[in-house]
Amino acid sequence: MQVFVIGNISVDETYLINDLPQKGSSIHGAKTHQDLGGKGANQAIILSRCGINTTLIAAIGNDNQGHWCKEKIEQERLTLRPNSPRDCRTDTSLILNCADGDNANITTTTAADALSINDIEQELLFSKPGDVVLQQGNFSHQKTEAIFSLARQKGLITVFNPSPVKNTFAELLPLIDILVVNQLEAQLLGNTADCILAAHALLNAGVGQVVVTLGAEGSMLLNGTGLTHVAAEPVSVKDTTGAGDTFLAVMLASSLLRQSSLAAIDLQRAALASSITIGRTGTLSAFPTQFELAQMLK
Amino acid sequence: MQVFVIGNISVDETYLINDLPQKGSSIHGAKTHQDLGGKGANQAIILSRCGINTTLIAAIGNDNQGHWCKEKIEQERLTLRPNSPRDCRTDTSLILNCADGDNANITTTTAADALSINDIEQELLFSKPGDVVLQQGNFSHQKTEAIFSLARQKGLITVFNPSPVKNTFAELLPLIDILVVNQLEAQLLGNTADCILAAHALLNAGVGQVVVTLGAEGSMLLNGTGLTHVAAEPVSVKDTTGAGDTFLAVMLASSLLRQSSLAAIDLQRAALASSITIGRTGTLSAFPTQFELAQMLK
Repeated sequence: MQVFVIGNISVDETYLINDLPQKGSSIHGAKTHQDLGGKGANQAIILSRCGINTTLIAAIGNDNQGHWCKEKIEQERLTLRPNSPRDCRTDTSLILNCADGDNANITTTTAADALSINDIEQELLFSKPGDVVLQQGNFSHQKTEAIFSLARQKGLITVFNPSPVKNTFAELLPLIDILVVNQLEAQLLGNTADCILAAHALLNAGVGQVVVTLGAEGSMLLNGTGLTHVAAEPVSVKDTTGAGDTFLAVMLASSLLRQSSLAAIDLQRAALASSITIGRTGTLSAFPTQFELAQMLK
Repeated sequence: MQVFVIGNISVDETYLINDLPQKGSSIHGAKTHQDLGGKGANQAIILSRCGINTTLIAAIGNDNQGHWCKEKIEQERLTLRPNSPRDCRTDTSLILNCADGDNANITTTTAADALSINDIEQELLFSKPGDVVLQQGNFSHQKTEAIFSLARQKGLITVFNPSPVKNTFAELLPLIDILVVNQLEAQLLGNTADCILAAHALLNAGVGQVVVTLGAEGSMLLNGTGLTHVAAEPVSVKDTTGAGDTFLAVMLASSLLRQSSLAAIDLQRAALASSITIGRTGTLSAFPTQFELAQMLK
């Protein structure tokens, strides 16, 4: 069994500035971090660190940042496909971190957009029924839909983390076996402010199992057998970047390693893992190590 | 004779965005360019392309962007010192290019700040009286002053392009043989809104020769023999980044190659060269080639 994560890779560059610049102005800042990021890369790396056979289908550009991403990914137990960079710039996420603690982000999707359905179809030739296809919200609605439709035709399990969320993603719910959303995504796609009602709406729309992450309030799982709530782990928050990706990947890995459908234990392990990510600064550099994950998944 | 350019190297990264982000927001953008920049690197590269024996004393960091800068500089006929990167991140200039044509810039100075007076002193051991020391405004007042004082002690010719300008730079004027300023810098350091009066004030403050660049209005040279005005070259403006650096470097190179003090012909050649930079997009990639400069300097 293997997991195909189809998504994006980006270089997360964090700048500390006093305040956001005005038009026409030049301000000084300090580049405090550069880290591998992108929700696709994040989730694939953590799955692989959990011991899951993982292929990341994602595009890097043919620039020095692309080389750097490839080197970083090659340090993980992960297969990156396609093997060659696309003829464009590698995607970047600028995190403009203001002195008052507020952030603004600028994200590019050039490389993610350059990955074609045809590229992805080629890579999925290596899939077998029962394998998993995991997508995030970085692709267009059309591409996201085409990939899940293809996955269903091939008898693959579909997992969707619709972040960043688009309104139209609600149309894709019948194609999804496992949906993982935060509160805002649940409310938007479930079309109600009440998260429990929203989770039921998502289930009724055709999703197999719904997981809603609730930040400090923990998380909940809704499926045919009912609703399960799991508390969050107490943690001193350093940086929440990548926490949702850690939660999703560890929850999914736990269930796959147990060879059983999602249950409270998977959400509990996920909560513990994401508390590690939250307690450290950065993206990749904040994630739990293979050793830490092995302890949790025993 | 050689020129020691003591300044900064940065990676210029240009992002095209609809509008500047608000706090708490995540927006999409496209990374449209990555180019070698930094006023120190720009001026040194153009001097070397003019056939001047040029040493750039500037710091890169020990990250992948530093490697990339080094590779770019190694393609020029230029000596980069110190030979080893500093233990920090390479400086970056983020150019946030809004859809309405307005820009905002975020610039880091970590690597430039990491270059110590001691580092610079070591490199200037190789200088001989009559060599040139050229600085821009990227260092602290104290470091800028210490370098020019050292240069004077060693009998070197001092050239100052005080950009970005600081008020206190006015105190350094007695240490300067050639001062190259734009209108705003002339007005600030000369303490009057009239550029001609400002140029006279700068000369009276102890500068040997004053050059004021006036954009589309051309440029002027003021020294002991009087005031010379030179017109700008007509050009369709694509991107003014690096235009001032091109002007300064070609003017200086022209005078050094003629083995004579600054004159109208040097400003005319500089105007022609900077019109090439203005007519092309980017920083390094917009600069005149060695071949183009050789034609101009014949």
